[in-house]
Amino acid sequence: MTREQLICEIFAKKSFLCVGLDTDESKLPESVKEFDEPVFEFNKRIIDATRDFCVSYKINTAFYECLGARGWNIMERTIAYIGDSHFVIADAKRGDIGNTSDMYARAFFHSLNADAVTVAPYMGEDSVSPFLKYTDKTTILLALTSNSGASDFQFLHTINQELYLKIIETSAKWQHGENLMYVVGATKADFLTKIRAVAPKSFLLVPGVGAQGGSLADVVKYGKTDEIGLLINASRSIIYASHGPDFAEAAAREAKKLASEMASLAF
Amino acid sequence: MTREQLICEIFAKKSFLCVGLDTDESKLPESVKEFDEPVFEFNKRIIDATRDFCVSYKINTAFYECLGARGWNIMERTIAYIGDSHFVIADAKRGDIGNTSDMYARAFFHSLNADAVTVAPYMGEDSVSPFLKYTDKTTILLALTSNSGASDFQFLHTINQELYLKIIETSAKWQHGENLMYVVGATKADFLTKIRAVAPKSFLLVPGVGAQGGSLADVVKYGKTDEIGLLINASRSIIYASHGPDFAEAAAREAKKLASEMASLAF
Repeated sequence: MTREQLICEIFAKKSFLCVGLDTDESKLPESVKEFDEPVFEFNKRIIDATRDFCVSYKINTAFYECLGARGWNIMERTIAYIGDSHFVIADAKRGDIGNTSDMYARAFFHSLNADAVTVAPYMGEDSVSPFLKYTDKTTILLALTSNSGASDFQFLHTINQELYLKIIETSAKWQHGENLMYVVGATKADFLTKIRAVAPKSFLLVPGVGAQGGSLADVVKYGKTDEIGLLINASRSIIYASHGPDFAEAAAREAKKLASEMASLAF
Repeated sequence: MTREQLICEIFAKKSFLCVGLDTDESKLPESVKEFDEPVFEFNKRIIDATRDFCVSYKINTAFYECLGARGWNIMERTIAYIGDSHFVIADAKRGDIGNTSDMYARAFFHSLNADAVTVAPYMGEDSVSPFLKYTDKTTILLALTSNSGASDFQFLHTINQELYLKIIETSAKWQHGENLMYVVGATKADFLTKIRAVAPKSFLLVPGVGAQGGSLADVVKYGKTDEIGLLINASRSIIYASHGPDFAEAAAREAKKLASEMASLAF
């Protein structure tokens, strides 16, 4: 799915919910354990249950890589199962010298067939441009993250502005930089005004609503654009809404609740 | 292999060479293509040929991930084949919120059984601490990278110092921070003096000698400590020294040449 299709889906569904598939094998409900591949079975049921309420799925690659080659297979099967109806983000936070980033771009855009991948900005333009070359795909750059360590470096004052703002402003000028999305932690909603001053139109992928405790109303109030311009990710609060045999129904309920809040706040 | 064993090996072999296994399937010599798993066969022969001249191997995970689940299997087989005689670095440049970094640490330290992993600093302490908790393993933090994009953000002046120095100084104070190594691009050898002022003892993983053109003599002159404190990585200049059937012999020749230069410069 392209960015244009994503925007159509957001308006059609009145939802900008992204469901994060941070599926931890050690936390699976009993009812999927009898299956050949319990992690995939869990994902499949979560996807079936939440499909109508979200426009995007985010695969947190760490949770699959820790299963080795098997985990990579599960990612492939999960993305194939999602299909073209949703915007698929590989939350991989990669970034390396040019020829290596080329390989990562190939891994996520070709081999896994994701629509978007998250990329770390520290190594600068030539570490990001191999992803940006895929103009039909989307590169999502870390800007302001939702964890406590964000304050270690992201708020450092550089000559004129804090680092995270400098990263947004600089990267927007790179070739195809207009296609960038940015990761902006919901727990930092106060900063959205500053971010919208330097990135008035960019889509923001916002983690931290849900388990991490950010405010949806604030994010909409300070971050929404004419095209909505927001993808709100919730992972644990949806996929682990219940640990019992009703986990899929509970996930649907949580996703539906968030989508309804979005509809009333933003449309 | 632990850091202490690594230091013993460096003095025993008079080499601090790390061979980078950035194995690109599209660049394999004809002579390995008939094998069941040509990429593993190539790695195996490079390892056999260079084992005596290096103390470390660095697996660039991007080159394997772009092969999907098969690539993950090749990484596992390659690391098992290297064995305990060398310091194995997973060059993965990961870093995410705490519970996700936990999974990455498990992926690389447990599932892949690497001795060290490279980590990006942008998300701060709680993104790095899950790796540092493995005190018998080594976390290698990106500080000053060897690519052109390094200048986009890494040299930004924060209040008292440039960002890369701030990152080194701050991270050294984190719990178990004394176990950190740092990635420092050889092409920036001039900056080693500044880095040694804030990190007098830390091991530095230095890419950029070889294909990227850094000076080994400068790195040794400005970066060496009593324990050597350096791992010099060369990837393409060794593994692609020849594209013919003599690729392993050519790799051995290049590795031996670099190791000899190290012996004469540093011991």
